[in-house]
Amino acid sequence: MKARELKRDLITTASSGNAGAALAGMAASIQLPAVNFVTQSAPQAKVAQLLIYGSTGVLVKGRYDMAFDLCLQASKEFGWDCRNTAYNPITVEGKKTASLEICEQLTLATGRNTRQWVTPDRIFVSVGDGNIISGLHKGLVDLAALEWIDPARMPKLMGVQAEGAAAVYNAWQAGKTDVEPVAGRTIADSINVDLPRDGRRAVRAIRATGGEALTVSDDEILDAMRLLARETAVFAEPAASAAMAGLVKAARAGRIGQDERVVVVITGSGLKDVPSAVKAAGQAHTIEPDLNAVKAALNLQTE
Amino acid sequence: MKARELKRDLITTASSGNAGAALAGMAASIQLPAVNFVTQSAPQAKVAQLLIYGSTGVLVKGRYDMAFDLCLQASKEFGWDCRNTAYNPITVEGKKTASLEICEQLTLATGRNTRQWVTPDRIFVSVGDGNIISGLHKGLVDLAALEWIDPARMPKLMGVQAEGAAAVYNAWQAGKTDVEPVAGRTIADSINVDLPRDGRRAVRAIRATGGEALTVSDDEILDAMRLLARETAVFAEPAASAAMAGLVKAARAGRIGQDERVVVVITGSGLKDVPSAVKAAGQAHTIEPDLNAVKAALNLQTE
Repeated sequence: MKARELKRDLITTASSGNAGAALAGMAASIQLPAVNFVTQSAPQAKVAQLLIYGSTGVLVKGRYDMAFDLCLQASKEFGWDCRNTAYNPITVEGKKTASLEICEQLTLATGRNTRQWVTPDRIFVSVGDGNIISGLHKGLVDLAALEWIDPARMPKLMGVQAEGAAAVYNAWQAGKTDVEPVAGRTIADSINVDLPRDGRRAVRAIRATGGEALTVSDDEILDAMRLLARETAVFAEPAASAAMAGLVKAARAGRIGQDERVVVVITGSGLKDVPSAVKAAGQAHTIEPDLNAVKAALNLQTE
Repeated sequence: MKARELKRDLITTASSGNAGAALAGMAASIQLPAVNFVTQSAPQAKVAQLLIYGSTGVLVKGRYDMAFDLCLQASKEFGWDCRNTAYNPITVEGKKTASLEICEQLTLATGRNTRQWVTPDRIFVSVGDGNIISGLHKGLVDLAALEWIDPARMPKLMGVQAEGAAAVYNAWQAGKTDVEPVAGRTIADSINVDLPRDGRRAVRAIRATGGEALTVSDDEILDAMRLLARETAVFAEPAASAAMAGLVKAARAGRIGQDERVVVVITGSGLKDVPSAVKAAGQAHTIEPDLNAVKAALNLQTE
């Protein structure tokens, strides 16, 4: 871990909970103390996860952006290593490994013995801070520079945001690179970001690859969560389902060719936000332990 | 999937939620309808998971054992394929693959180029219905019969139960094979079983391998959950943490040799039962977004 290499004795980050839990687990594995700043509204599962790994949890009464600034301020005040997404230049180096895995696994899956790795035509990924899509781009650029992939076959990066937190989309749509903050509001907590800290790089990644920015509604996100679970047995959290919702939307609009190879990056487990899953999943029947109750609930006839 | 091979048009099971979610995901992947009977007290995450995969969820007002009997009754009445753990002879064939993976991965991890696979000296596993430990045993017996492992180096199976639901332990301790029902009461919902449906086979597996049955308290389970997370970055649900608690207890009692190779089977993610994780994890600090609040909460001085 970079913090150990830098001889820091504590690492800290702000996050919606996913990065914090990952940091806590990693820090625990090398006995490095960690302080996690999380918004007070973070799903309980995410908070429990970073605490069980032994990191100190600090729930900030405010939005992600306030937790981000407070974490940065504290790291300067107390001499901590700050892992804040996009602020810390190493995060994108971590995220880029997703591109290496995508191309490597596609190559293995197609069984082709090629000089170069196989690339997808498009990669759909949700965009909050914009660091994951920036990392994917960095990975692809690195692979192309090495000619491990064909530079002429760079995948189009499809950045998906929630309608209610669409700062990167807005900039892309307006043909700008500077990203203006919004007042984020979406069920997808991990991408509920006012000011994407890696927004400029995200917009550039989308433009440089000939991709698109898209927005999806919260209802489309919940629909995609069901679809993904039922068609692929992958149970994703709302922010991850947003990427799938983006694929559905683009496909319905006829913007995806029939023969395109498409990857959807799933960035978080559905078990991390069960209340949202309950909204998407529908209801169970509650019955007495009696066969007639089964018949009544499921509207069955005896065979 | 066996149900498809048998040309059944619906599969059903009773479970505490883990087996049900696995069944729902698997059934979704082959478009086979599934009905899941679960106890009403099942953690919300487990119910959400089986619903998101599209199976029909039936919450039974009663204990696991009642859900089990009702599922079996319904499957006979309506001609469904019944996957009930241990009732269905195929479940143990699925569970046994864990033994194949353990020995294969240990062999790969040790980097030894041996004629036979490497075995652990002991395997700790939690015991509810007793089907997993029976499956582990079946896998080891199969491997020994094939001489893929040394029959003289059969791992000792260490079956761990919660103190409050210790039917298999009781039978083992009394030198019996018949398992008497108990009134189960433990935080570890997945092993909160009154009458283990694979109890006889579980007792035999422990005896045949020279292993032991152990019990652990709910507090020991929560302690083990923290320990496991902080030492290995594995976040396990209570029933899975029970296996780790068993190892801690046996090691403290001096019953594990210093040079023994020990495997602990983790049977469920901690994200599936967040309320229990919150009990184990402790509390986060909740603060205003202000540096002085950070100092006060974490008792820090400026450097």
